[in-house]
Amino acid sequence: MSSAKRALPVTRREDFAEWYQAVIDAADMAEASGVRGCMIIKPWGYKIWERIQRRLDDDIKATGHDNCYFPIFIPIELIQKEASHVEGFAKEMAIVTHHRLETQDGKLVPAAPLESPLVVRPTSEAMITPALKRWIHSYRDLPVKINQWANVVRWELRPRLFLRTSEFLWQEGHTVHANAEEAIEETRNMLNVYRSLVEDFMAIPVIPGVKSPGERFPGAVETHTIEAMMQDGRALQSGTSHYLGQNFARAAEIEFVDRDGRLKIAHTTSWGFSTRLIGATIMVHADDDGLRLPPRLTPYQVVIVPIMRGEAQRGDVVAACEALARSLRAQSYADEPIRAFVDLRAENSTTKRWNWLKKGVPLVCEIGPRDLQGGQVAVHCRLDICARGVTQNLAEFITDIPQVLGNFQTTMMEQARRYRHEMTVDDVTSLDALRRYFSEKTGFVRAKWSGNPASEDLLKEFGATIRCIPYEQSGTAGRCVLTGESATTDAIFAKAY
Amino acid sequence: MSSAKRALPVTRREDFAEWYQAVIDAADMAEASGVRGCMIIKPWGYKIWERIQRRLDDDIKATGHDNCYFPIFIPIELIQKEASHVEGFAKEMAIVTHHRLETQDGKLVPAAPLESPLVVRPTSEAMITPALKRWIHSYRDLPVKINQWANVVRWELRPRLFLRTSEFLWQEGHTVHANAEEAIEETRNMLNVYRSLVEDFMAIPVIPGVKSPGERFPGAVETHTIEAMMQDGRALQSGTSHYLGQNFARAAEIEFVDRDGRLKIAHTTSWGFSTRLIGATIMVHADDDGLRLPPRLTPYQVVIVPIMRGEAQRGDVVAACEALARSLRAQSYADEPIRAFVDLRAENSTTKRWNWLKKGVPLVCEIGPRDLQGGQVAVHCRLDICARGVTQNLAEFITDIPQVLGNFQTTMMEQARRYRHEMTVDDVTSLDALRRYFSEKTGFVRAKWSGNPASEDLLKEFGATIRCIPYEQSGTAGRCVLTGESATTDAIFAKAY
Repeated sequence: MSSAKRALPVTRREDFAEWYQAVIDAADMAEASGVRGCMIIKPWGYKIWERIQRRLDDDIKATGHDNCYFPIFIPIELIQKEASHVEGFAKEMAIVTHHRLETQDGKLVPAAPLESPLVVRPTSEAMITPALKRWIHSYRDLPVKINQWANVVRWELRPRLFLRTSEFLWQEGHTVHANAEEAIEETRNMLNVYRSLVEDFMAIPVIPGVKSPGERFPGAVETHTIEAMMQDGRALQSGTSHYLGQNFARAAEIEFVDRDGRLKIAHTTSWGFSTRLIGATIMVHADDDGLRLPPRLTPYQVVIVPIMRGEAQRGDVVAACEALARSLRAQSYADEPIRAFVDLRAENSTTKRWNWLKKGVPLVCEIGPRDLQGGQVAVHCRLDICARGVTQNLAEFITDIPQVLGNFQTTMMEQARRYRHEMTVDDVTSLDALRRYFSEKTGFVRAKWSGNPASEDLLKEFGATIRCIPYEQSGTAGRCVLTGESATTDAIFAKAY
Repeated sequence: MSSAKRALPVTRREDFAEWYQAVIDAADMAEASGVRGCMIIKPWGYKIWERIQRRLDDDIKATGHDNCYFPIFIPIELIQKEASHVEGFAKEMAIVTHHRLETQDGKLVPAAPLESPLVVRPTSEAMITPALKRWIHSYRDLPVKINQWANVVRWELRPRLFLRTSEFLWQEGHTVHANAEEAIEETRNMLNVYRSLVEDFMAIPVIPGVKSPGERFPGAVETHTIEAMMQDGRALQSGTSHYLGQNFARAAEIEFVDRDGRLKIAHTTSWGFSTRLIGATIMVHADDDGLRLPPRLTPYQVVIVPIMRGEAQRGDVVAACEALARSLRAQSYADEPIRAFVDLRAENSTTKRWNWLKKGVPLVCEIGPRDLQGGQVAVHCRLDICARGVTQNLAEFITDIPQVLGNFQTTMMEQARRYRHEMTVDDVTSLDALRRYFSEKTGFVRAKWSGNPASEDLLKEFGATIRCIPYEQSGTAGRCVLTGESATTDAIFAKAY
């Protein structure tokens, strides 16, 4: 397919937001539900989420956390308690006020008002901290390290599939520690779990760092973050890990008798990762032909399409496709058997091939009667779609598959890194220059920042924010890009999702 | 521990409901949350759910279903549409009426009323059927077979942990077919998936059958069920699979162009399995010392407790425990590596042993300094707790473990079957006798039923119901136990959860 003719009706350059939606439609990943801001995650989208979930769940367990489950509803009194000590507390939540439907004049209406309203969890700190208080008495009970996979709701006025939905799926980890050092170590470790998931598994390069005070999670002492760059030059916060200090523990009275016999207030952390990252995968990897998925993340790595002209050799062709799938599954890549799928639907083979390429499957193979005799297979590689498949020797294709997928994964990471490199500048040194930059373009600006909290407000005018103070610092001295004060700290400035 | 002294403060015989709660407390599986009817599933309870979930999810995928995710909120209009064609529609639901909190006089109150209220899903038919209508146009699109893992809410006035909670976790499968035969086959196949899960995996014997009209899912043409007997002689419906006929499809206009070119209404099914079955596991398998878990279900099959007297041989003992765990993990049972866990907590070893026995772990091993020299291990078997562990040769214990676990699983199933057999009668032949039976005892009564729908109401007086018409029928003729009419159908009558 030539660069002029693309599989999607709109390109990234023409309209990034429309292109994003077109990728989702073409890959059949999700759709709007009719309920404001709530999406239906369709099988292909959900399979991608299950891949992320399985890998992250394994990592969360391997680092000593136990899964559990807390109620979806939070009494308004607990929210009240939290709100009264948390500044910047967001208030867009779904609120349950009744527990029965009744028919009045042939119409169902809410009946049986609750004595006190319940809030649908926007996150579970308010519910989990009181439970932790009940569970923890002594230093022997610490650390407590729990996690839950759940749906959460934050009312969204301008929803977008995956990126910003009123209901989304996520995991939220909550831990309690005897002292700050341990809690901060946990906070950093979990950020590193996210970093590895996003970089090594999803092939999305990120900048790990700490949030500025203006961008911190409400109530946190430190918010650690990984920031990724989308193909429109904007940042997407891709996972956060919060050191909450004693703020939540003090409000919920999570106290314990320490080794020295003294009653102390515990230190807590929380960290979360959501279906939003499916949106990031699209915005980092998809192209004007649809989605592209890295081999470690993708539900299927190889899809095999039989080419049948008439019924004559149908059985032989299907058998060859199934045999190829079995041979591939007997091989492994990244410690998992190759995920191969044979598409036997009653559809035209060109339609099938394009279906899978738009869904982002790395390799689509076609086998027809002629290939049977020649012991060959036509391989379409999603890295860079070409009109015809490349004919390869079948045995070699099978032998080489782990290496081919490994190269594919590396190449996707390199492409994303290269794009980010091209879209990052470090020569913007004044507020005027920063204003000019963000009025004309998007991208990451790496510049000095004084740390002066009031200075963050200056960014609002042009819609940018400090994304993070990267862990990796140059250590050089210079002038704050916002205030001109002398400064040694590097920060990343960008417009963000 | 002698039979006189038991680990729980209350026995099954003394108070079954209190005993049930005591098992949950002693095993640290779940607790009340402070939100009416909503529970906190703690790590041990959740690990059990994850075992069930993984096995069932594999089965659901292996039978050709795709997971996806639908919104938690359902517009009241869709509920209205469903209610208007579904008789017996339950109305206890959580209703969201506002989407913001505002502070008034220092208190948070609901603000920003929704134009139209949203219902928190009690099940997702109302949401999923309209989506299926959008997705289905031709016979080529059929069958559609989807599943979702989700939380659902049904307001409960008398909640009990796991058994009856306002919020619970479940999977709900929804499928669409071109004709009744296929849909009925699907309904039966999925019931069989549940039967195999409950019997082969959870060691709970069940009676598969069809519900009487009075016990059917509202809107269903046929409800298939598996019914289990608890240790108080009551029945627990342990999984249901519904053939919905064209009822939901007609209301939602799920139509397709068939091979013959004619527009037809589709046939749908739905089926669900929930955290309630954790309650069933307790009520079938636990004893007066706490939970007992079958080897295929349990999160850990063997827990190893080091016995350390002083610090002298501490390192050697811990090393021996870890080595035992590794040797066990290298063996497999039921196609999975043995799940062995070494408990290194700073706790006294007797406390640890009882912790794990009350949690239902099949085998608890203790290794102390003396065992090191003798190459032996003390094994406590949860089938029947004895005061001392049985000392066994370490190498033999490792070699025999798959067989020991296999016998353990079989024995638990046999024990449950034997109990059910003892608590089932088939010589109750009149309404008077049935009334007498249920006023004095609990258990299953297998008797003839005419099928007369009005006759089911006669059972209400003594709190029993028809649990199912078993697939397995004797084929003999007799008189209906309710009406005295001649009847050939066997039915199971019982009090139920």
